[in-house]
Amino acid sequence: MIINGPNLNLLGIRQPEIYGGCGFDEYLATLRSDLAHVQIDYYQSNVEGELINKIQEAGFGYDGIIINAGGYSHTSVAIHDAIASITAPVVEVHISNIFAREEYRHHSHISSVAKGVICGLGLKGYRLAIDYLLQ
Amino acid sequence: MIINGPNLNLLGIRQPEIYGGCGFDEYLATLRSDLAHVQIDYYQSNVEGELINKIQEAGFGYDGIIINAGGYSHTSVAIHDAIASITAPVVEVHISNIFAREEYRHHSHISSVAKGVICGLGLKGYRLAIDYLLQ
Amino acid sequence: MIINGPNLNLLGIRQPEIYGGCGFDEYLATLRSDLAHVQIDYYQSNVEGELINKIQEAGFGYDGIIINAGGYSHTSVAIHDAIASITAPVVEVHISNIFAREEYRHHSHISSVAKGVICGLGLKGYRLAIDYLLQ
Amino acid sequence: MIINGPNLNLLGIRQPEIYGGCGFDEYLATLRSDLAHVQIDYYQSNVEGELINKIQEAGFGYDGIIINAGGYSHTSVAIHDAIASITAPVVEVHISNIFAREEYRHHSHISSVAKGVICGLGLKGYRLAIDYLLQ
Amino acid sequence: MIINGPNLNLLGIRQPEIYGGCGFDEYLATLRSDLAHVQIDYYQSNVEGELINKIQEAGFGYDGIIINAGGYSHTSVAIHDAIASITAPVVEVHISNIFAREEYRHHSHISSVAKGVICGLGLKGYRLAIDYLLQ
Amino acid sequence: MIINGPNLNLLGIRQPEIYGGCGFDEYLATLRSDLAHVQIDYYQSNVEGELINKIQEAGFGYDGIIINAGGYSHTSVAIHDAIASITAPVVEVHISNIFAREEYRHHSHISSVAKGVICGLGLKGYRLAIDYLLQ
Amino acid sequence: MIINGPNLNLLGIRQPEIYGGCGFDEYLATLRSDLAHVQIDYYQSNVEGELINKIQEAGFGYDGIIINAGGYSHTSVAIHDAIASITAPVVEVHISNIFAREEYRHHSHISSVAKGVICGLGLKGYRLAIDYLLQ
Amino acid sequence: MIINGPNLNLLGIRQPEIYGGCGFDEYLATLRSDLAHVQIDYYQSNVEGELINKIQEAGFGYDGIIINAGGYSHTSVAIHDAIASITAPVVEVHISNIFAREEYRHHSHISSVAKGVICGLGLKGYRLAIDYLLQ
Amino acid sequence: MIINGPNLNLLGIRQPEIYGGCGFDEYLATLRSDLAHVQIDYYQSNVEGELINKIQEAGFGYDGIIINAGGYSHTSVAIHDAIASITAPVVEVHISNIFAREEYRHHSHISSVAKGVICGLGLKGYRLAIDYLLQ
Amino acid sequence: MIINGPNLNLLGIRQPEIYGGCGFDEYLATLRSDLAHVQIDYYQSNVEGELINKIQEAGFGYDGIIINAGGYSHTSVAIHDAIASITAPVVEVHISNIFAREEYRHHSHISSVAKGVICGLGLKGYRLAIDYLLQ
Amino acid sequence: MIINGPNLNLLGIRQPEIYGGCGFDEYLATLRSDLAHVQIDYYQSNVEGELINKIQEAGFGYDGIIINAGGYSHTSVAIHDAIASITAPVVEVHISNIFAREEYRHHSHISSVAKGVICGLGLKGYRLAIDYLLQ
Amino acid sequence: MIINGPNLNLLGIRQPEIYGGCGFDEYLATLRSDLAHVQIDYYQSNVEGELINKIQEAGFGYDGIIINAGGYSHTSVAIHDAIASITAPVVEVHISNIFAREEYRHHSHISSVAKGVICGLGLKGYRLAIDYLLQ
Repeated sequence: MIINGPNLNLLGIRQPEIYGGCGFDEYLATLRSDLAHVQIDYYQSNVEGELINKIQEAGFGYDGIIINAGGYSHTSVAIHDAIASITAPVVEVHISNIFAREEYRHHSHISSVAKGVICGLGLKGYRLAIDYLLQ
Repeated sequence: MIINGPNLNLLGIRQPEIYGGCGFDEYLATLRSDLAHVQIDYYQSNVEGELINKIQEAGFGYDGIIINAGGYSHTSVAIHDAIASITAPVVEVHISNIFAREEYRHHSHISSVAKGVICGLGLKGYRLAIDYLLQ
Repeated sequence: MIINGPNLNLLGIRQPEIYGGCGFDEYLATLRSDLAHVQIDYYQSNVEGELINKIQEAGFGYDGIIINAGGYSHTSVAIHDAIASITAPVVEVHISNIFAREEYRHHSHISSVAKGVICGLGLKGYRLAIDYLLQ
Repeated sequence: MIINGPNLNLLGIRQPEIYGGCGFDEYLATLRSDLAHVQIDYYQSNVEGELINKIQEAGFGYDGIIINAGGYSHTSVAIHDAIASITAPVVEVHISNIFAREEYRHHSHISSVAKGVICGLGLKGYRLAIDYLLQ
Repeated sequence: MIINGPNLNLLGIRQPEIYGGCGFDEYLATLRSDLAHVQIDYYQSNVEGELINKIQEAGFGYDGIIINAGGYSHTSVAIHDAIASITAPVVEVHISNIFAREEYRHHSHISSVAKGVICGLGLKGYRLAIDYLLQ
Repeated sequence: MIINGPNLNLLGIRQPEIYGGCGFDEYLATLRSDLAHVQIDYYQSNVEGELINKIQEAGFGYDGIIINAGGYSHTSVAIHDAIASITAPVVEVHISNIFAREEYRHHSHISSVAKGVICGLGLKGYRLAIDYLLQ
Repeated sequence: MIINGPNLNLLGIRQPEIYGGCGFDEYLATLRSDLAHVQIDYYQSNVEGELINKIQEAGFGYDGIIINAGGYSHTSVAIHDAIASITAPVVEVHISNIFAREEYRHHSHISSVAKGVICGLGLKGYRLAIDYLLQ
Repeated sequence: MIINGPNLNLLGIRQPEIYGGCGFDEYLATLRSDLAHVQIDYYQSNVEGELINKIQEAGFGYDGIIINAGGYSHTSVAIHDAIASITAPVVEVHISNIFAREEYRHHSHISSVAKGVICGLGLKGYRLAIDYLLQ
Repeated sequence: MIINGPNLNLLGIRQPEIYGGCGFDEYLATLRSDLAHVQIDYYQSNVEGELINKIQEAGFGYDGIIINAGGYSHTSVAIHDAIASITAPVVEVHISNIFAREEYRHHSHISSVAKGVICGLGLKGYRLAIDYLLQ
Repeated sequence: MIINGPNLNLLGIRQPEIYGGCGFDEYLATLRSDLAHVQIDYYQSNVEGELINKIQEAGFGYDGIIINAGGYSHTSVAIHDAIASITAPVVEVHISNIFAREEYRHHSHISSVAKGVICGLGLKGYRLAIDYLLQ
Repeated sequence: MIINGPNLNLLGIRQPEIYGGCGFDEYLATLRSDLAHVQIDYYQSNVEGELINKIQEAGFGYDGIIINAGGYSHTSVAIHDAIASITAPVVEVHISNIFAREEYRHHSHISSVAKGVICGLGLKGYRLAIDYLLQ
Repeated sequence: MIINGPNLNLLGIRQPEIYGGCGFDEYLATLRSDLAHVQIDYYQSNVEGELINKIQEAGFGYDGIIINAGGYSHTSVAIHDAIASITAPVVEVHISNIFAREEYRHHSHISSVAKGVICGLGLKGYRLAIDYLLQ
């Protein structure tokens, strides 16, 4: 299960010097064809509460969740709580290197309840997270 | 009117060592049967804005509102503003003792516009809040 | 395009000593009749993510966006990111003088990605923002 | 056992716009007559160390302690330590809503070792605390 | 009355990538010809105390004062006090978006005693401030 | 009424390079003989709570109170509350200039509820405070 | 020598609820007639550097200087340095109780190099300072 | 002279996982029998001011003072002042390792005026302090 | 090139509840046999400066560097500078989730000059970093 | 061009243990005779705004400016802005080692827009700055 | 095992007003002759990493380690980690009272993983630490 | 004696837009030929402890030491202590203007114990430091 947060639906359009020129749908297709034997579900929303709904829904059934909560990563105690409440292992992914950006992006409320964090490795980060969860 | 925020729908499942093993629906039933003469309405949502909608809706008609905004308590200026805008008295309730937990849970944006706060007394806190409002 | 955030639907009712006694709909009517040659669309929501949806939707077509994100101004990195992702110029408006109020209202995440900020000039601020964008 | 800290002996005289016009003795009488079957002992002192003496004395025998440490709540590590050392459950009560007052009243050293906190609900808060402990 | 603070006499020469290439005298001429029916007086000084002298002098006679205190905005309690002492309404203007610049430019001592603030809208900000005051 | 706090009984012995070599009793005698027509009562204690007891006792009868709470000035919310509860005007006195000493002595909890503060003028400060109160 | 800083020339006009309704000239006349045997010179300026000029000029000849640097008290390292450079004893006076006002008024750069501080005792504070220096 | 502060009378009962299961009286007996040639006086109080009284009393006669001010260590400027006022050398002792506990226990107001500090070495710390003072 | 910092030579011995029970040599053997076609060099040192020497040495020849600077991650500006000076891409790896540990481990000086960061995914993190660099 | 700020006219008189016993005029004479082929202009003022006037005046004609803004270094955004606006290279000089003095002297607003800084090397620092600019 | 950190090889030469005039070698000889039955090994290095090497080497064999990490105490997370990784009990010793010195010496990264801390008791502190470990 | 710290061996290669394109060896040759009568020794190391060794070694024999501790400037209390322990005067040099770079480079632990600081004047800074020491 891959869950993307706010503004990640603009990938490919939004600040391509930071996030690259490739949309997520395009990347997802590659991912699915590369890993044909793995079921990869995908959800994106700009609404914090809908992300929580989805985390709760997926959190007791899936083998693993990959989450990129975008701007909510830095502000949402509620998403932190949702992840702390579920049983599926969660890997946090960021496309850009949040530590090389503005101060307020250095802290993610999600990191402390995730299994681990991959950031700055572009879209490739999602693939590495899947490799980890498949292990 | 009782309004519960994010992840409180998982009560009984979520971190039972903190929140106890009893779901809110179950507790609500007891509450209603104990206080048969009182009309107790209930709303839960994981979406910050929907909580605001409900606060606005209930805030001019009900005799009192009990709110547990969960993770939004610590981050939401918008819910603070909603409560400051209405006329019904509001009591803030937290099931766990937020002052004995992580630093970032010690501050609630809601407390300063609520009538008062009850925390750490488990589900019993909702009952005490009703007792106060019935007064 | 004017986008209003949480609790601005209560204008005229909410804390009139701060925000005045005139509702936004009433003001919008005046605005539209004063500026008959300008198309002024309007959107209000209490949901952070829906504001982001609307910013994304309007951000590539309109000649300018006026945003008053209310309480989300002070907490939302996600709205900041949405505005940074679009091409239309954005003017941030606050009805009250946020610098003369509580400490936590002095900082707006939106200001740094907006073209500029108008605050404290009441509903008149919206008109001035339009004048600027018409320029 | 109810233990009141500094300046609470002035209740009814001291800043009535914050604390109300009713003295504690008067309230205690009502409390005792309402709860005739419950033994309610009471102690008040302006001396931090005497409060500690009383907490130590009561802390191994009573079924519960209700403490309002007044101004010492915000500064006393020693009272915190006393409460952490005893076995009786402790409920912290504040008459006024400390979160709606000065910054330095927002933090109480006692809260993290109390069972829970009730604040802002006036003298009624003592009654609710007893109800909780009777449970 | 328009009062400009330190270094604003260099407008057009100073960092044109931030402040634009147009000098203030030039702009003032346009302003006066556009608003022929309005008396617009102008004063500029690099000396903090002379700005205070002028604010005191103008503060009881004029219908409104527009002030851009430049670098003194961020450091001067004395100018804050001067504005708080007078009766004419004051609008604070900044040519550049101070919230998109260095941290120490985000706070202005003047804002809390001004009627409101317009920033980031270039020289146009002065015109909008006049429009507001004419109202 | 003059109330002295902790360690002021050691005056004349304690760090004479800071506090001078004259004991308070000696000074009090001079004061009383100089101001024969004024009744000057004096109290000293090292116990925070006893200072509060005395403030409460004196606070509704005397024409004025002069308080030097010594080390408690910097830490006691409870003494702050006691002073805020009484009706007699209070002048805070410090023998040494607390602003020229350690950082933690720069802030006094008492100052904000006192009428005013005299510090650094040695024992003479007590005399000036009486002159003020006699006014 | 009495040196008054910015906005103190507005005394009697400026925020009378804080500073009282009596102008300084009027008060100075009383002072001079009360203390006919003492030469009291007076200087007021809104310009920080002119205050420094005067401090340097007076600092080696007068028996004492009374300074109320107004808003510059809280921001001026340069006035601090001027006072540290001279030999005449300096008493800092504030008419209002700066510790009962905004946070940024609690710290004065001047206090640590003054002999002492008198604040909150109104215009009477100047008289007490003279009494101290005459000693 | 050994002076123990608040809650140290509960030693052996209070949180034995931190402070051990041995009461201080028991330990004192061993200490006295081990060091039969040394006069060891002992005082314990929960009242801050009484500790100050004792420090003042003992501070000019004894060869050395060992002080464990318990919770007051972290909050008491008044005890700091008392120790700074006396002539006997003082060694500060803590039974537990305060640096491995809560943040607010890391700072002791007493340390800077003590000769030195021994902490975390259990009751043995008192013995080592005596050895040092006997030197 | 894999560069490990201080105490990573104790892997398998050191706090196995955090770092696991497998030594790095053992893991390296698996890594090399799994990726037989890739040349993987390895260096470990407890000396900050020797890590810098190695980074400088490897930084202009290798296709990529994987660095886990252990405790130096949180304190070393010098390693930050070394990485900023070289041309090879660097991936930072942490075995444990540093964001779920002590506050001072949340910040790494290296992250802002690394390509990206992988943390909390155990020894597997090294493998994922190689996969990224091979890309 | 050498520009000296507040209190530097007192050099030789002011705190000679920090600034030495030599006046600036005296030093300037030596400097001019040593460097007979270089035109060295000199300006001193205690008024912040006059320093800005001079910086603006000199900033477009001279080959270099040496500035010691004294106490204004630590507080003046306006002088920072003036230096950022001109084209001549600026070297900041301090006679004393500001980093070995009070905390608030460690930061200079000027440093970030100067070419470089020389401090603690006494009056010799001016000579070294000239040597640099002559280069 | 005694391990001394940077600059402790200069003992007797370095700042004797703080550290005393006796070199460590001299003291070690006394220690060894006083405690002839105890094997006392000694190591000193100025290199952080070599201290870590020695801690690792000694940490699994010796009965106890006494460490004075000098300046590294305040900055080294890596030495903290080394001590946390070993099994021998560690006592931290400081010759001077670090709490009576500069602010940045008040915190030691080592204290939280040491058994306990002895500071300010001069070279005698090493002897007391041995006495504790022999226990 | 010139002592260069970490990464300064990469001068000419490392970030030439900040540090220039000239290696230090090259510059040293020029320096030595320009100042043929002065003995200039040189040492560079990336190891903090080796820099301390060299400072101790050179600190009692040389007429002066010029130190550029690179990244260790901002983090090393141990180098601070080494410099405080020696008798030779030390001048701190930085090639780039550290005050115009990242926040964490604004503070140097070395500055407070150095004679003075020269920064931002490129390699020329070393020459000016020698000129000062030759004086």
